[in-house]
Amino acid sequence: MTRRKKLYEGKAKILYEGPEPGTIIQYFKDDATAFNAQKKATLEGKGVLNNKISEFIMTRLGAIGVTNHFIRRLSLREQLVREVEIIPLEVVCRNIVAGSLATRLGQEEGAPLPRSIVEFYLKDDKLGDPMVTEEHITAFNWATTQEIDDILAMTLRINDFLSGMFGAVGITLVDFKIEFGRVWEGEFSRVILADEISPDSCRLWDTATGNKLDKDRFRRDLGDVIESYAEVARRLGIMKDMPTVIQGGLH
Amino acid sequence: MTRRKKLYEGKAKILYEGPEPGTIIQYFKDDATAFNAQKKATLEGKGVLNNKISEFIMTRLGAIGVTNHFIRRLSLREQLVREVEIIPLEVVCRNIVAGSLATRLGQEEGAPLPRSIVEFYLKDDKLGDPMVTEEHITAFNWATTQEIDDILAMTLRINDFLSGMFGAVGITLVDFKIEFGRVWEGEFSRVILADEISPDSCRLWDTATGNKLDKDRFRRDLGDVIESYAEVARRLGIMKDMPTVIQGGLH
Repeated sequence: MTRRKKLYEGKAKILYEGPEPGTIIQYFKDDATAFNAQKKATLEGKGVLNNKISEFIMTRLGAIGVTNHFIRRLSLREQLVREVEIIPLEVVCRNIVAGSLATRLGQEEGAPLPRSIVEFYLKDDKLGDPMVTEEHITAFNWATTQEIDDILAMTLRINDFLSGMFGAVGITLVDFKIEFGRVWEGEFSRVILADEISPDSCRLWDTATGNKLDKDRFRRDLGDVIESYAEVARRLGIMKDMPTVIQGGLH
Repeated sequence: MTRRKKLYEGKAKILYEGPEPGTIIQYFKDDATAFNAQKKATLEGKGVLNNKISEFIMTRLGAIGVTNHFIRRLSLREQLVREVEIIPLEVVCRNIVAGSLATRLGQEEGAPLPRSIVEFYLKDDKLGDPMVTEEHITAFNWATTQEIDDILAMTLRINDFLSGMFGAVGITLVDFKIEFGRVWEGEFSRVILADEISPDSCRLWDTATGNKLDKDRFRRDLGDVIESYAEVARRLGIMKDMPTVIQGGLH
């Protein structure tokens, strides 16, 4: 591997300068964090699994017209993506009550929502990623009204697609978090899906048993974290592409 | 005073059954609380001042067509109001950054907002009155989409009116909190303004000096709480209606 300029190191990924202008290399680490990084661990193989799962999902989303930053996978832990100007929001879409919706608003975990809910959180670790509304987002110029409309429309399409995809393999999509970025062409910009979609950023429950197949296994010390991520990959039909060491370690 | 049935005792007010069906007596206490009742005090005269200030504002709002629960003042600390089915939301309207908008979102207190922001908080002391969005409100049936639209429209009218009213007497309206309730006629319901509007529920800054004339004096231990509430009443031209003991105590 040639020496590359590191642009940013996050909790689960590192971004390097890409081979051409306007590209970035996204490297998936095995590090896991929760509760605003108060809880940390290294989960061997997580980066490889998330790289492959995210590639799978982003490619299929691109095919239905949900424009995203994914260009191609480069290696076990790396993918080439389009450089974007990140919008400082975590966009959460929920189908079933779980996580902070249960604790903050006193709702029963597992209760289906009458319709999908989209929430916005400001990406700011120091402030603990507070929930914000469209009014805050436009008042403080984090995104424009038009960008919010585009984000909402894309988020609902992604939710429909993922619900169908996971539903087909016996997995219930409870909720997920996505991020968006701006790409510029001259003076015009457009919002595209960025970051990743993986068991780190989704709540996925086995439809038959209710077993969690996502990062909540780590947050709640349920064990078998990697085995569960691998089960998601297996059901999506991409486990066969994994290196033997990961496949072997899971039997 | 005849014996009346107490319906509810809150932090700053008591509600009694009214003389006729569909009416309530709203009694203003001198108790002050802050930070979800972790801080408490009794401020002599506060109830009398807030009863009068709220009467003044509700009457004028009614005159411009903002329907509200106020019927008439009964005594120094009591007003007769229409019984409503309270909507469990605190509706906050902000013109300038202050309070939780500064702390939660890391914004500078005192910065004017590019346009007024309306926020909703779930009235639930156990959960600490968490902020919620329109999506949560409709998903959990706290109010309908139509009711939210009516609440937003009324809130913006109230903001315009109060900004004009306070501005005319040298007071800047920074933000305020209001509550709404449903009244029923047969199978139809309508949303009206309820609760109170007073220095307990508004942030009011003296335009010339920036001095706070509201409950933040209590929250932040700035002293002269009652004197500041009385200053608001004096500027609104209603201090002359106060009992001599309150007028006298403030000179």
